[in-house]
Amino acid sequence: MKEFARKQRDENRIVGLVPTMGALHQGHLSLIKRARLQCSSVVASIFVNPTQFSPSEDFAKYPRNLPADTEKLENAGVQCLFLPETKEIYPQNYSTYINVEGLSERFEGRLRPGHFRGVSTVVMKLLQIVQPQFAYFGRKDAQQAAIISRMTKDLNLDSEIVVCPIEREADGLAMSSRNAYLNREERGRALILHRSLELAERDFRGGERIAAKLISAARELLVSEPLVRVDYLDIVDPDSLDPVERISGKALIAIAAYVGTTRLIDNIILTS
Amino acid sequence: MKEFARKQRDENRIVGLVPTMGALHQGHLSLIKRARLQCSSVVASIFVNPTQFSPSEDFAKYPRNLPADTEKLENAGVQCLFLPETKEIYPQNYSTYINVEGLSERFEGRLRPGHFRGVSTVVMKLLQIVQPQFAYFGRKDAQQAAIISRMTKDLNLDSEIVVCPIEREADGLAMSSRNAYLNREERGRALILHRSLELAERDFRGGERIAAKLISAARELLVSEPLVRVDYLDIVDPDSLDPVERISGKALIAIAAYVGTTRLIDNIILTS
Repeated sequence: MKEFARKQRDENRIVGLVPTMGALHQGHLSLIKRARLQCSSVVASIFVNPTQFSPSEDFAKYPRNLPADTEKLENAGVQCLFLPETKEIYPQNYSTYINVEGLSERFEGRLRPGHFRGVSTVVMKLLQIVQPQFAYFGRKDAQQAAIISRMTKDLNLDSEIVVCPIEREADGLAMSSRNAYLNREERGRALILHRSLELAERDFRGGERIAAKLISAARELLVSEPLVRVDYLDIVDPDSLDPVERISGKALIAIAAYVGTTRLIDNIILTS
Repeated sequence: MKEFARKQRDENRIVGLVPTMGALHQGHLSLIKRARLQCSSVVASIFVNPTQFSPSEDFAKYPRNLPADTEKLENAGVQCLFLPETKEIYPQNYSTYINVEGLSERFEGRLRPGHFRGVSTVVMKLLQIVQPQFAYFGRKDAQQAAIISRMTKDLNLDSEIVVCPIEREADGLAMSSRNAYLNREERGRALILHRSLELAERDFRGGERIAAKLISAARELLVSEPLVRVDYLDIVDPDSLDPVERISGKALIAIAAYVGTTRLIDNIILTS
């Protein structure tokens, strides 16, 4: 992989990296599409990263479908598919981990301790192996995007992190591998996440700048739906993830909620 | 700095990095000398790294002598002196840290929690900024060398870590900025560290391979000296720092001891 990437750079190609864990959906493919607009050589990686799963999470059961993924990536026009084995990424005696402190402990990190340590570490390794000019991540995982962007800046990497918009189903549901876990009733009720975000966005466009007011209206709508249980609904700075009281400039409104037993996340950026 | 280093690479120069905290002595200059043998462009950095000092250690009192250091580096023939400011290396909201787990907690790390987290992080940043083909570290700080080597391998960096032999005074004392803290009597007694290592080496060359026996003879000599108090004296694998019972191949015999109130370290590599 290093050799291929070096050769691409030597030929003055612009190398883009799209790191994934496979189980590809339209959200991933939109990252490839965006990468192809900017880069002359697009590398997609598929690696189900064990270090970002906690012992209680089921690494073994994470969906894997290499033949379908490969076909999708070929059709999407990637130049290279990087498929490392676990023992290549984490050889015996592996012991180096990256922590983006503060940013990694809140929101998703509170529920999944060590998750972002695993994410930061594997992304760092992929960035060092491929050394892309651009690397692409989805805004759906807004906290992950903030953490990777911060790490890249803090550690003086040459790669530029590009955060791409959320892909949605026709009815507004954010695309996610987890949507497959929803039954028909839950699938319908899950729409309330995006509707609640849209309500906040409407209030915001109507002039409301007080975060607490936007949150309380959105939360009221969110909890009105049967089968839905809120984990968090917050308005934060998209880079620092610090709570915002009065919005000036950009803010991120983020939701995590259970629909039945499936935990979903969604978010919208509010821009003055 | 990035621009200079990139230009050097574009001109097909081999870039070497010698990271230091200043207060340069012959030990540092031997690294420069070694770098000049391998590289056509040698970058030395001086940065007193705050994150590797614990709150109880005196970052402010660390010796700084930029005019003398600059002259030494010029005479040694470096192409570039990199002198970043603290706020450039750790800007506001800086939050990314690297931990080489396991290796960082023992020996020096036990005495100085967080020390190697700071070292790994700043070295990683310097490696990303300069992107040298080779980076040079002294064997005197054997644990630091093991940690940096492991980090570089674990994170798939392109730089090669070169660990250089300990420079010694004519009477055998390992060179160190801390030697300046010794009074005349202590300076004499401090020789016992190297002598104890030499005793172990002699026993080893005489055929002794049982670590416990080598250690106990060396320790007996070490503690025989007034004013000397042993912190540790161990025989370990130079890469993993795991204790070795019976030496086959390479082993590191490492000492930390107080001479009066000054804590000194020294070591020797035993090779079958």
